Amino acid sequence: MGNELLTGDTLDTNGRFLTRAVESLGLAPRFKHVAGDREEDVILVLRDAASRADVVFVTGGLGPTEDDLTRKSVARAFDRRLIFHPELLPPIRDYFARAGQEMPPDNERQALLPSGAKPIPNPLGTAPGFILEDGRTSVIVLPGVPREMRGMYEASVHSYLASRFRGGETWEVRTVRTTGVPESKVNELLGNLLDLSRNPQVGLTASDLGVDLRIRARAGSRDAASGMIDALVEDARARLGPAVYSEAGEGLEQVAGRLLAERRKTLAIAESCTGGLVGARVTSVPGSSAYFERGIVSYSNESKEALLGVPRSILAAHGAVSPETARAMAEGIGRSAGTDFGLSVTGIAGPTGGTAGKPVGLVYIALAVRDGETRVEEHRFPGDREMVRARSAQAALDLLRRHLTGC
Amino acid sequence: MGNELLTGDTLDTNGRFLTRAVESLGLAPRFKHVAGDREEDVILVLRDAASRADVVFVTGGLGPTEDDLTRKSVARAFDRRLIFHPELLPPIRDYFARAGQEMPPDNERQALLPSGAKPIPNPLGTAPGFILEDGRTSVIVLPGVPREMRGMYEASVHSYLASRFRGGETWEVRTVRTTGVPESKVNELLGNLLDLSRNPQVGLTASDLGVDLRIRARAGSRDAASGMIDALVEDARARLGPAVYSEAGEGLEQVAGRLLAERRKTLAIAESCTGGLVGARVTSVPGSSAYFERGIVSYSNESKEALLGVPRSILAAHGAVSPETARAMAEGIGRSAGTDFGLSVTGIAGPTGGTAGKPVGLVYIALAVRDGETRVEEHRFPGDREMVRARSAQAALDLLRRHLTGC
Repeated sequence: MGNELLTGDTLDTNGRFLTRAVESLGLAPRFKHVAGDREEDVILVLRDAASRADVVFVTGGLGPTEDDLTRKSVARAFDRRLIFHPELLPPIRDYFARAGQEMPPDNERQALLPSGAKPIPNPLGTAPGFILEDGRTSVIVLPGVPREMRGMYEASVHSYLASRFRGGETWEVRTVRTTGVPESKVNELLGNLLDLSRNPQVGLTASDLGVDLRIRARAGSRDAASGMIDALVEDARARLGPAVYSEAGEGLEQVAGRLLAERRKTLAIAESCTGGLVGARVTSVPGSSAYFERGIVSYSNESKEALLGVPRSILAAHGAVSPETARAMAEGIGRSAGTDFGLSVTGIAGPTGGTAGKPVGLVYIALAVRDGETRVEEHRFPGDREMVRARSAQAALDLLRRHLTGC
Repeated sequence: MGNELLTGDTLDTNGRFLTRAVESLGLAPRFKHVAGDREEDVILVLRDAASRADVVFVTGGLGPTEDDLTRKSVARAFDRRLIFHPELLPPIRDYFARAGQEMPPDNERQALLPSGAKPIPNPLGTAPGFILEDGRTSVIVLPGVPREMRGMYEASVHSYLASRFRGGETWEVRTVRTTGVPESKVNELLGNLLDLSRNPQVGLTASDLGVDLRIRARAGSRDAASGMIDALVEDARARLGPAVYSEAGEGLEQVAGRLLAERRKTLAIAESCTGGLVGARVTSVPGSSAYFERGIVSYSNESKEALLGVPRSILAAHGAVSPETARAMAEGIGRSAGTDFGLSVTGIAGPTGGTAGKPVGLVYIALAVRDGETRVEEHRFPGDREMVRARSAQAALDLLRRHLTGC
């Protein structure tokens, strides 16, 4: 519910969260309807949704103002009266009291619920949610603020749905992530594993960073479902080889970071075309200061010489975007930082700067290993500046990951 | 249309694009419906939408396989037959020929259109779109791939809608961006400018990076509407002061980058808690190599000393997160890079590392100016690691922007 979702100013991450949250119960979404801040429109989509599904999630519109239509509209859509619940006020008052404020009178509205609705406590905000059972349909109403919505789902809604919908069967879900292999090739390698009639079922999602396998297994117990997924993942790994970097839906920065931490190895990074993206991803992981020592964004040739010790002769003979420069950058940063690994990226992100011999999308990545060989890779990425930079950062982290896992 | 939108694996950026694209025609979205890859569900939402709107945009499901249901479903929803259009095949064949391939036989399906539909050429892909007029409703069917969808909208659909819907009035739209002032305060400062009955209308959208004003004006001519927006923006600027950083919907990295380029000034960056985010944003702008010289991610204290010349005595006396260290980092990077500006960030992003005196979210930002004073700012950001880092990067770019504009 809400104009900002309807216009797309806010993208619907709540829908994604709820879809994944109910997967383990064997529930899957059938429709999504978005209405703006008009009562008649909200009522229309509520009735559409309830007539077509066993569970309807409603998010947003539970705030304290007149514009927040959800309580009123749910009551009208299902022919209920709004009942004032005085017992819902103290937690709202407490929420304001913790911030040293008094509850504004408008917030009293948040203690109104359609008759027959059961409240859902909101420990992280003011608006309680509620569950309204209308015939065979459960209408579950939650705030739009993602943090509040998630907290309430996890604390109250999941167990409600589990008791109502979980039959003898359990679902388990796992996300296996791959990079460096195009979707069409993943499709071909997985072949019959992708048949929709199979259990476990495998769905593919492709992004600039790689292809994810979303695996859902149905079985009589959690262990059985989990075992079925284990077997499928083993099969998929055999087909996909080292392209698989996570079986738990993690990012490459988490995977590579954990490998570094476990082996007590340290890392320094020299970036050119990615401009700090690789460092930003590595340091997005809490605790990364244990293994990440420093990064250098050497955008100018002068900084490549001064900070990384790239010889002027290499820059002059081969150019800033060359395997030789990538190697010198990686070895230079590793040496000066005194780390176990030096990782470098240099390339042409575009839109300008490309030539026939060195087109936009040409990127060199190098990994210098203390007391070891330096590995250099050439990539030619399609797409615009943003895509080339994102893929370059992913490829750099993947080179480190493959080295650490010996592939 | 499509399972990946229904589950949220793909977020709907097409809806946002189309909403903004039709704003200048005075069209606004009323509903959004998403159905997965089931024909009966697609037909249901097509009929719902067509019964409630003058224009229905349908995106996705135009591919060459059996799963691509849109052509078939639109035909059934509006009681049309599918007609084969041989004249649509050559452009599809040409598309494959440019990649040195032959058109697979499946792609012949893409030359089928519901009877009465007018094709929309697709210069960037294989699937043609189409427009079907059913009574008073225009059903406009486009591919789901954003690049193709946008190209087709701009080349063909906008002029069609303009001829059908633009009456005597024209709409103009502008996005004014602000940072550093919370939404409640922006609300208060704008006051009556936010009345929904006004023309121009102003809507607010808040994110981690600031609050945007979306301004829509309706008038007899483009110039008149534009003039009304100019007047409103002037009023808003007077109320909001230096918080306004763009009147054209740009990011701070674009605004600050343009100011640097215009004045032929150069920049170097020293980052700690942001780990490269500021550099990544600055270098996301094409042509940033004209003003960005280098960046250093000094995660360890050793690197702050070795690369930035931060005196050990300052680190020992005040700690890495202190106004003194921020100042020394900014001055050190500016000096060693020989740039006009040195910009630094140091802070505690969390979740660990905070103390009572220096809590998570405490961030210092400094700007060293060649032959000038160094400015240092203290911030206390709420939120998790990701939010603290994003806000820190935004605040750093904003400090640079405010210096360059003299506020």
